[in-house]
Amino acid sequence: MAYDDQNIFARILRGELPAIKVYEDDQVLAFMDIMPQAEGHTLVIPKTPAVNLLDLPAETAAYTIQVTQKIARAMEQALGVDGIILMQLSGAAAGQTVPHIHFHLIPTNVHQLGKHAAQMGDQEKIKAQAEKIKAALES
Amino acid sequence: MAYDDQNIFARILRGELPAIKVYEDDQVLAFMDIMPQAEGHTLVIPKTPAVNLLDLPAETAAYTIQVTQKIARAMEQALGVDGIILMQLSGAAAGQTVPHIHFHLIPTNVHQLGKHAAQMGDQEKIKAQAEKIKAALES
Repeated sequence: MAYDDQNIFARILRGELPAIKVYEDDQVLAFMDIMPQAEGHTLVIPKTPAVNLLDLPAETAAYTIQVTQKIARAMEQALGVDGIILMQLSGAAAGQTVPHIHFHLIPTNVHQLGKHAAQMGDQEKIKAQAEKIKAALES
Repeated sequence: MAYDDQNIFARILRGELPAIKVYEDDQVLAFMDIMPQAEGHTLVIPKTPAVNLLDLPAETAAYTIQVTQKIARAMEQALGVDGIILMQLSGAAAGQTVPHIHFHLIPTNVHQLGKHAAQMGDQEKIKAQAEKIKAALES
């Protein structure tokens, strides 16, 4: 699949759409999923344009998973969760809805995973979770 | 959680238990899940002892995700699938059953994901899928 730079994550990366950010550097952005499958649901995306795991440059994959680890540790510390699902969907046939690669970090049990991207969450609650994760990252 | 070297993946790594392997090098092993959530379900594990994403050394995480990308590409080519779920569960509370970090590659839709580690698959069918993936990796 060719990369479509009008997808919503590309627009977030360009600052054209808002996001509740928890981490950003020159290569990676982490922000809250506004349709969370569990409280604290965070997305980690590389800034490199790539559709999914298959077309992601190897070096970008390496760095992105390392940031994902840091976010996961901060989530555990900040939210007091003791189980985190890492999930990444490659292809619409897998359920991928936004064609810019994204790693989900979802603090829940796989058997209780809510329907993917099903409904909007409480934005104030999500902002509060983001503040906690950011604080843990900075501590 | 402390690493328990009697877990079944540690035993597979030591050759004490069999596995239907699709890829192996000095750092990583990929093998078929014998209780697949979809046809072609493959596991990618680092040889480094680590329980989950949180205690996995950063360099090992980087290399393991890069191998995972290669396996995913081979699965797409070998099995003709156009959607792959990458999933990794950290903690029993997330649904992790074997306390050695493992990345699932599951060629299915997230909404059709079978129950995690629920039932044994057809071992001959799984071996045939493994042969196809291995052939794609070597091509």
